Parts: sequence; structure tokens; C-alpha cells
Amino acid sequence: MKISTLTVKGTFDILPNDMTLREWMKNTVTDIYKQGGFQQIETPSIENLELLTKSEGGENLNLLFKILKRGEKLDLSKDNLTEDQLCDLGLRFDLTLPLSRFYTNNRGELPNPFKAIQIGWVWRAERPQKGRFRQFTQCDIDIIGEKTEIAEIDLITTTAKALKALSFKDFTVKINDRRIIKGVIMSVGFEEKEIESICITLDKMDKIGENGVKKELLSKGYEEAKVNQLIKALVELKALDKEALLKLNVDEEVIESLKQVIDVVNKQSRGEYSIEFDITLIRGMGYYTGQIFEVVSNEFGSSIAGGGRYDKMIGRFQKEDVPAVGFSIGFERIFTILKERNFEIPTNSTKIALIYSCNEDVNSVFNWANKLREEGNIVSVFPKNKKFSKQLSNLKKQDFKYFGVYSKGEEEKLQLLED
Amino acid sequence: MKISTLTVKGTFDILPNDMTLREWMKNTVTDIYKQGGFQQIETPSIENLELLTKSEGGENLNLLFKILKRGEKLDLSKDNLTEDQLCDLGLRFDLTLPLSRFYTNNRGELPNPFKAIQIGWVWRAERPQKGRFRQFTQCDIDIIGEKTEIAEIDLITTTAKALKALSFKDFTVKINDRRIIKGVIMSVGFEEKEIESICITLDKMDKIGENGVKKELLSKGYEEAKVNQLIKALVELKALDKEALLKLNVDEEVIESLKQVIDVVNKQSRGEYSIEFDITLIRGMGYYTGQIFEVVSNEFGSSIAGGGRYDKMIGRFQKEDVPAVGFSIGFERIFTILKERNFEIPTNSTKIALIYSCNEDVNSVFNWANKLREEGNIVSVFPKNKKFSKQLSNLKKQDFKYFGVYSKGEEEKLQLLED
Repeated sequence: MKISTLTVKGTFDILPNDMTLREWMKNTVTDIYKQGGFQQIETPSIENLELLTKSEGGENLNLLFKILKRGEKLDLSKDNLTEDQLCDLGLRFDLTLPLSRFYTNNRGELPNPFKAIQIGWVWRAERPQKGRFRQFTQCDIDIIGEKTEIAEIDLITTTAKALKALSFKDFTVKINDRRIIKGVIMSVGFEEKEIESICITLDKMDKIGENGVKKELLSKGYEEAKVNQLIKALVELKALDKEALLKLNVDEEVIESLKQVIDVVNKQSRGEYSIEFDITLIRGMGYYTGQIFEVVSNEFGSSIAGGGRYDKMIGRFQKEDVPAVGFSIGFERIFTILKERNFEIPTNSTKIALIYSCNEDVNSVFNWANKLREEGNIVSVFPKNKKFSKQLSNLKKQDFKYFGVYSKGEEEKLQLLED
Repeated sequence: MKISTLTVKGTFDILPNDMTLREWMKNTVTDIYKQGGFQQIETPSIENLELLTKSEGGENLNLLFKILKRGEKLDLSKDNLTEDQLCDLGLRFDLTLPLSRFYTNNRGELPNPFKAIQIGWVWRAERPQKGRFRQFTQCDIDIIGEKTEIAEIDLITTTAKALKALSFKDFTVKINDRRIIKGVIMSVGFEEKEIESICITLDKMDKIGENGVKKELLSKGYEEAKVNQLIKALVELKALDKEALLKLNVDEEVIESLKQVIDVVNKQSRGEYSIEFDITLIRGMGYYTGQIFEVVSNEFGSSIAGGGRYDKMIGRFQKEDVPAVGFSIGFERIFTILKERNFEIPTNSTKIALIYSCNEDVNSVFNWANKLREEGNIVSVFPKNKKFSKQLSNLKKQDFKYFGVYSKGEEEKLQLLED
């Protein structure tokens, strides 16, 4: 019996055309990021299980791919084995946790502040569905060691530039601050320990609407009066109203910082995109401590980037907290959008096929190919098939534009491949 | 207690300078490969365990990282669980087996012949030692669907070009054919089923020498007379002697094909590298069926690339065999060599730091940064530190060449960062 040649469920093979688009995307954004002083790094795909499971990864912890211990470390003779006894490693489920580990592990050799680029695969054992993969690419920039909002401004303007370079035109940056959400939630009488659970529900506002959020909060057992008050407070707080926020015990500093970010980003946008305060923006991860942001494509009606400040994560790995902010573009989402709209990558290389019939000519054909390559063309050499016209139509299908047949002593001449 | 921030044993973090070198290496070789008509693809890092374990992966099968089943598929209640009951996936240990699966899975959408580029991580649970990693990069080109030696010529000349672009000058391509080795081994009276085991020992010739090989073959229980005869035959066959090889029942076609490859590659090399027949070249993998080759750096005395023809691997996944040849450069070895000789990457970007003191100026500083970025510079914006001279010396250490301090109403002026 032949072995199945399908990819593992939820993963995908990348064919040449898709690969070209993905590589173009990566090069386009890294060029922008590097111009902005960010430096690319990479961490291993596998991490110690202890690191992964003791993180605030939330839902992602249930989606871990765990790796079996090897050699003497694996003892299968015991009964009632647990996953922790069987496994010691796992595949990373995001790039933020590994970055925090990386920073602590290498801080002596890193600049301060450290502006990082990471592009790499992450793995989550999600229930497979359209647009959800078990292995997918994340593309992050982070600034570690900068406590002022210059980090947020830098990340937002750089990400916006990257999105423009990826051909996105009509988008809006939404921004909020975890400390404002906290202020609102506590102002109506909820306790600090309830914030996380309430945020998880509030995060669904755009999917299930106001009524859905209310229903879910009631089903979690929260008092109806408080829930109503909370939703009312959120609805009323559409603008960044300083007076109203101060009444909710939000620090003036938090409000001024948001205003500064919105003001500078607005100016930097030159009207090509917009930034707006959105009290309903929550973002799922438990580790955010300050400003959070998301980019929504108005054209495609979906979120294409997201991030925020996480000043308390690195402190879990070392004595001192280190401020950190990150912004991630939705690589797979953007790839799907570009592919669906048949986006054409700018290229100036021409594909040429050189054909020979006789073994004695191979060296000369390679010489010809090299000359054409030096002129910037993409050149492949093929032996001549018996069915020559079929060979030519196949080359045409493969996007070859010209072909040349080598004949000793004759002029080296290229011909257009006709339909 | 703080969690360990070390990488998983045998894996490594990639810091900015190393990343820059690795990315330069990848871009340099893919540019050459693409000019030669190769197309980049990628397969998932994880494959079904069945695929990985039913391969001729040899030693690599003992080095598999296996992934625990998830959800309902995992039943830990049974006693005497086996690894196969516990695991369903594994991390790929090379790029050749996944490529063969990929080819069968996608052959309707691929050109014929298909010239593939693959650069990616592979994982092997090796005993960690200097220069041996558990996660490392492989960098392969393969031609699938071409039965003539034009494939070998294409791969060897393209790989040589890539190595030259990576700054390697003095290297030798060694070439042999598995069918010649087979001929020699069987000519002294060994049986076909013994070839694999004998090859594994012969492959160690450059490490343990003629005597070591003899000793190991004797310890495997082979007759001393035959062993002596084999070693004698190998020693005598230093040149590609047609008459001698025909006597060993090697097909004339095999010899002519080798001669053609050596002849054309020699001419293509323009004296910048050499190619030579080497009867002692064996190469470890069991799947090779025809010509095999290796590049040795004479300068660094080590193998920096290797490959060969494997015409029978794809047939394990589909009805028909499809001819295939591959060539892999030793990415990690080359990276280590370049790093050790402090190789400097050609670059024409200048790093500039712009500094501001006052929140009102942030927008203007970003405008200044953008102007400089458009001129091709790498620019980062920083708030001014209280200890300004220390800030400047830190920037100098981070390879910033110029700095500029923004002052409203004053000329935008860059200054050289002095030591």
C-alpha cells in the first residue's frame, strides 16, 4: 500500500507561485522594518514545555503540540502516564513568548532599546476550518526597553508603512488602553479579578453584538444591573473624553499618552489612513498592560494587524520588568487577500528556455544561458523533446516568454513563445 | 522560581548580526538558483509519522522528534503504551523526503521537469556536540523528472556558482556513481543484499582510513579474502578507466554519462574550481541510485555540499517512478566558516539615530527620519537621555554612524558619532 502524500491536517504545501508571493511579502515588510532601524532575529521552533505552559498563553495552551521525550528520558513502563511525564518540549504557539525568553537569554548582547523583527512559523492544534491553520506564519515587530509612547508611535507608523507597501490603501488603526478598559469595568463595581473574564466576553462585541455580550456576561453570573451599566458606559465613551475618563479613575497620563499617539500618527498618516480611539477594542491576550491597537482594512472588512504593550512579561524571566510593545501583521490573512485579488508582484525578469538536441552542445548551451543570466534573465536549459511543439506549449504554460534552440555554428537567436 | 530562559538543548537563538549573515546567505543562493530557473517551494515542518518512519531515512529514523497525539486520539488509560500509540506526527529530518511527498501531492500543478529550491529548518535528536545541532537549516535544489545527466550538470554548475557567490574560491567537486560502487563490490563476490552495509563502512574511508575500513568489514563477518580484494579494487580504480570498469560489469552508459558530466562541468568551471572522479565517494543515504557528488573546500578541508540521484524514491508514493536528483549546500557549516573568518557582507546603508527632547517635536523628528529613509538610510528615533554622552557612546557601539538632535526652528544637521 502506498503511503498517504497529503500534508498533515491543517497544514499546507506552498507551491512556486504562492511561495513567490509570500517571499515578496516578507522582503517588502522586512525592507521597511529595517529602514526603521529594526533588526531581524530568530528563535528555535521548539521550546521547553515548562516555558510554554507557564506562560499567560490563555487559550493557546490547549492548542500545544507536545514532543515526546527521547531515549532514556522516556519511560513507558509506568502506568497512568501523564502528558508531562511523556513530553519535555513543545512547538511555539506565538513569537512573543519566545522573544521575551530570547531577550532575557541574550540581553547582554542586545542594544537598549531593542527593536526586533521576527518572521516565522508557529503551530496551534486548532480545529481545522477555513482560514485557520495548524502551522502558520507570524510576522512581528517589537520594541523592548522603551517606556514612553515613542515605541507605540514607531510601531504603528512602521506597520502602516509596511501595509501600504503590501498595497493596502484604505485602513484604520483602532487604539485603546487596557488601563481605560480596567477603569470602566471597575467603575461600575466589578472586582479586579473579574476583569480578565469580562474582557474575553467584551472582545466578542464585533462578532456577537451588544446583546450577545450582555447575554454571555449574564450567563457568567454577573449582576444584570452592573452589566447594563458597563455596556452603557462603553457605548457612551465613544470619544476620548478626558473629563469622563478622569471620573473613571483613569490616570491623566494614560489619556495624554493616547492623545499624543493619536495626534502624531494622524499627522504621519498624511491622510492615507486614519487612527481612532475605540473603547470596544479589547484584544484577547492576557499579557497586555497598556495601549492596544489593531488595523482594520475598510476595503476587506477584516483585521489585518494587531498589537499592544506588555510591560510585565519579561519580568517573569528575570528580576526586573522591562517595558515592551509589539505589533504583528496578519501574514496569512494578508496573503489570502492578495491572492484572491490576483495581486501581481512587480518583476522585471524574463523567463527564457534554451533547448539543445545533441550532447556535444551542452557546454555551449550553458555558456549561452550564463550570458543571458548575467543580463538579468531567468534561464533554464532543456534537452529537445521528440514532441517539440508540445514541449513549446508546455513552456508557454510555465510562463516562459522566449525560447532559443541551439544549433552549432548558427546565430544564438531567441524567439517569442506564441500561444 | 524563574523559568529557565536557555534554548532547548542543541538549538540556538539567532542574534541580529548572525541573522543578517544568514539572510544574506539565503538571498545570495536563491538569487543564483532563481536565475537558473529553479522555483522556491516549502513543505510543513510536521509530517505524518507513517511517512517519516516508512522512509529509507537510515540513521535519521532514530533521531526523530515525535509529536504526542491530541484530544480524543490520545488514550493514556492503557498500559504498556508504545510510541506509535502515543504519537501521530513528527518533525521532518530532511527536505528530500518531504519534497518527494510534495511532488506526488501536487504533480498536476508542477512543470515537468520541476526544478525546486527549498530552504528550511530540519530537526534531529542528535547527541549534542560541537557543530551538531538538533534544529538546523538545510538548503537544497532538486530537479525532478529529468532522466538525462543534464540534471546533474545543471545542479553541479548552479551549486558551484552559489558557492562562489558565498565567497568560496578553492573547492573540488568529487563525483562517483552508485552503480560503479555496486559493480566493484559485486565483482569481488559480495551479494546485492550486502551492498548497503558495505557502503556504510566504505563511507568512513576518509575518517578511519583503509585499515579501519578493513577492520570494520571483518568485524561485520565478511571474508578476509573478499575484503582485501575489494579494497585493492578500489585503490586501483582511482581514474575513470573505462576498460577496467567494463570488466566489473558497469554499463558503458554509466561511464559515458559520468564522462559527459565531468567534461561539461570542467569547461563550465573556467578553471575556478575542479571536478574529479572519486571511487571512494559513497555518501550515506540509502536512497541514491546513480551519480553522487560532494563539494570539498580545499581551503577549509571540509565538505560544504553534497547530493546525488534518487530515481526510486518518488515511486514509493505513486505508481510510476520519477527520476530525481538533488544537491544540498551545508548551510550551517558554511555559516560557521563565514562567521569564523569575520566575513563582511556588502552593504551600502548607513545607520542614523535621530534624537528629540520634547513631546511636541515627535512628529517633526519622524518627518526628518522618513526623509533620510527615502535616501536609503537606516534610521531610528530615540528620546534624549539624561546621560546624553553615554547615550551617544551606546549608539556608536550599535554601529550607528551619524546622529542628529532635533531642535525646533534649527537646521536639521547630522553629526558623525566619534569614538
